[in-house]
Amino acid sequence: MADQYAAQNAASVAHTDSSLVPALRWEELPEGPVLVLLDQRRLPSEEVELVCTDVPALVDAIHTLAVRGAPLLGLAGAYGLALAAVRGFDVEEAAEKLACARPTAVNLAYGVRRALSAYRNALKGGADLTGAAAAALEEARALHRQDAQASARMAAHGLDLLKELLPGGGYRMLTHCNTGALVSGGTGTAFAVAGAAHRAGELRRLWVDETRPLLQGARLTAYEAARAGMAYTLLTDNAAGSLFSAGEVDAVLVGADRIAADGSVANKVGSYPLAVLARYHHVPFLVVAPTTTIDLGTPDGSAIEVEQRPGHEVTEFAVPGVPEGGSEAGTGVAVAPLGTQTYNPAFDVTPPELVTAIVTENGVLSPVTEAGLAELCDGSRSGNGMMSI
Amino acid sequence: MADQYAAQNAASVAHTDSSLVPALRWEELPEGPVLVLLDQRRLPSEEVELVCTDVPALVDAIHTLAVRGAPLLGLAGAYGLALAAVRGFDVEEAAEKLACARPTAVNLAYGVRRALSAYRNALKGGADLTGAAAAALEEARALHRQDAQASARMAAHGLDLLKELLPGGGYRMLTHCNTGALVSGGTGTAFAVAGAAHRAGELRRLWVDETRPLLQGARLTAYEAARAGMAYTLLTDNAAGSLFSAGEVDAVLVGADRIAADGSVANKVGSYPLAVLARYHHVPFLVVAPTTTIDLGTPDGSAIEVEQRPGHEVTEFAVPGVPEGGSEAGTGVAVAPLGTQTYNPAFDVTPPELVTAIVTENGVLSPVTEAGLAELCDGSRSGNGMMSI
Repeated sequence: MADQYAAQNAASVAHTDSSLVPALRWEELPEGPVLVLLDQRRLPSEEVELVCTDVPALVDAIHTLAVRGAPLLGLAGAYGLALAAVRGFDVEEAAEKLACARPTAVNLAYGVRRALSAYRNALKGGADLTGAAAAALEEARALHRQDAQASARMAAHGLDLLKELLPGGGYRMLTHCNTGALVSGGTGTAFAVAGAAHRAGELRRLWVDETRPLLQGARLTAYEAARAGMAYTLLTDNAAGSLFSAGEVDAVLVGADRIAADGSVANKVGSYPLAVLARYHHVPFLVVAPTTTIDLGTPDGSAIEVEQRPGHEVTEFAVPGVPEGGSEAGTGVAVAPLGTQTYNPAFDVTPPELVTAIVTENGVLSPVTEAGLAELCDGSRSGNGMMSI
Repeated sequence: MADQYAAQNAASVAHTDSSLVPALRWEELPEGPVLVLLDQRRLPSEEVELVCTDVPALVDAIHTLAVRGAPLLGLAGAYGLALAAVRGFDVEEAAEKLACARPTAVNLAYGVRRALSAYRNALKGGADLTGAAAAALEEARALHRQDAQASARMAAHGLDLLKELLPGGGYRMLTHCNTGALVSGGTGTAFAVAGAAHRAGELRRLWVDETRPLLQGARLTAYEAARAGMAYTLLTDNAAGSLFSAGEVDAVLVGADRIAADGSVANKVGSYPLAVLARYHHVPFLVVAPTTTIDLGTPDGSAIEVEQRPGHEVTEFAVPGVPEGGSEAGTGVAVAPLGTQTYNPAFDVTPPELVTAIVTENGVLSPVTEAGLAELCDGSRSGNGMMSI
């Protein structure tokens, strides 16, 4: 069924099955291969899939946050490159467009680069265009598998870390934004740790920040927590302070969109205030992210480009499922006077001294140091779990 | 014109004049006296007045935040008592209902008490019911005048304090919730200081926190700032952290709903995280409130009752101007899964050690100490401006 809200060359399909809809999947249809995305803008009220047949449609889905979350953006980048290759579009142009669709999450460019390298190497090795496209797709699939494995390993390392930091068990965790199966080829990052604690019977409460302006916490994390049967409570971002005051938070767990070489963490705006509150209240602040999120080419926090999002995300309320749904200025319900200027950064940067530990698939780094981060990235500690904590 | 959204025994009237609509006024209509409120739920899109003819209608307006803000609640309480008296309703019952309509702002009970005392004293002094009612109304009017004068004096004291703390001028102030003419018989509290700085040509930027869940910053402060011609920028509450990091905040100014004897400040939820951020970044955190907000009968922060608001304020978006407008559960647009549990305190408490100064009509207290606060309250320092800073 064609969908009036879908991007050009994308169609959406309502999902009726009660099982968990994957955030992203490659599908071979009779009319050609497509990349199918769960449209995250329409959750939790509707599970609708967005079918992308080319890169412009995918770039639009990335811009409008139909698909979002650092690891998942990496997969979208890799599969998007493969889609261009398999469908015979200009691969180099597709790579450029995809890699810069959003500036902060380093995973996006990483995913594109991996599939592009596979494509180029295949051509260099004598493959024809079809063979090179197949190589790009295989690389995207490999990244997908690795991402799922990384989720499982982060979850295990994170749970071990919690056991060490909070030997009493029965964790009350605060999380921000959405970091579950909707951002990953697996079970996610920070949310995967909460999931592991839940399955171990040790999650007493998941405090879910609603995460303004786009409410990924309310719309997506609450949705995943409800499906997983967790004990969760939703709060406005600014109510977290009272929880800390009341001693109701044992640990803060967040994901990351980019980690600089010095350990500065760019993540969803609102993470930094939580890190400051956590420090003030002597509560661990844990960042959970695959090593693909670590960007040793970015020296420190000041070198991270922070995406500034459109003001209408703040001045208007986008009604989900309504035509246009507020994805463009003037299409939502105004909540501020016309002409109001906004400051709407998508991310903020938490300096390494406020991060208790970084949890990756290769192990845990605490304290967060430049040398430790480099070591974690080269995988030399892979498999041995804890590092210098 | 009768209004389908109005409370029982209240009617609303659309306002078409371009001048500033008073937040609250007493009016003698041919059919009897009424209390006219600017319906703050419908700003900034509509300026609609709500006409209350009895106390239940006023209590409903207080519950639903059609009228809100600590000093204004004091006026609403006093005029409400007078309304009951003048219209011949049970005055003692009205006092009880009004005083406990919302638990945290001490001004509400204070306003009720002042009008009730005037009423009782008049009766004791031999006045008949009409005379006692007139005395209650005159006391409400006196409180109104005093509140307007207090605003002007807080604004002057606050500006003097800013000049002392930030000798460079050109202030970039961050404020939370709404504290202007909409909360007061005068120009407000924290916002009044911003207004004074603006008129002095020293306001470089007013950073306006949107203030979830009810968006009083976006809807009301932005509206007042736009009308005053201030340079203002709206942000989500969780974006304030980035502003501090970037060195873009010279001072935080907030109001208060109750100040305990030890100097603990209950104010709109989200104030405490700002106080912690301000401390971390060595930025002054200033509380501006009339002495009527100081409650020496409440020993400390732990003794302040914090109102817990309904969960649907978080899980649903109340579309302004739409029937029911989301003031009841299930009438807004859902932004979280059905059945989501919430934590929705209306206020948080900032301990005195995080408050740089308290600015009142009687002067400025810094550092904030129990003895200094008591001295400020008894007015012994009245008129001499600064105290021990």
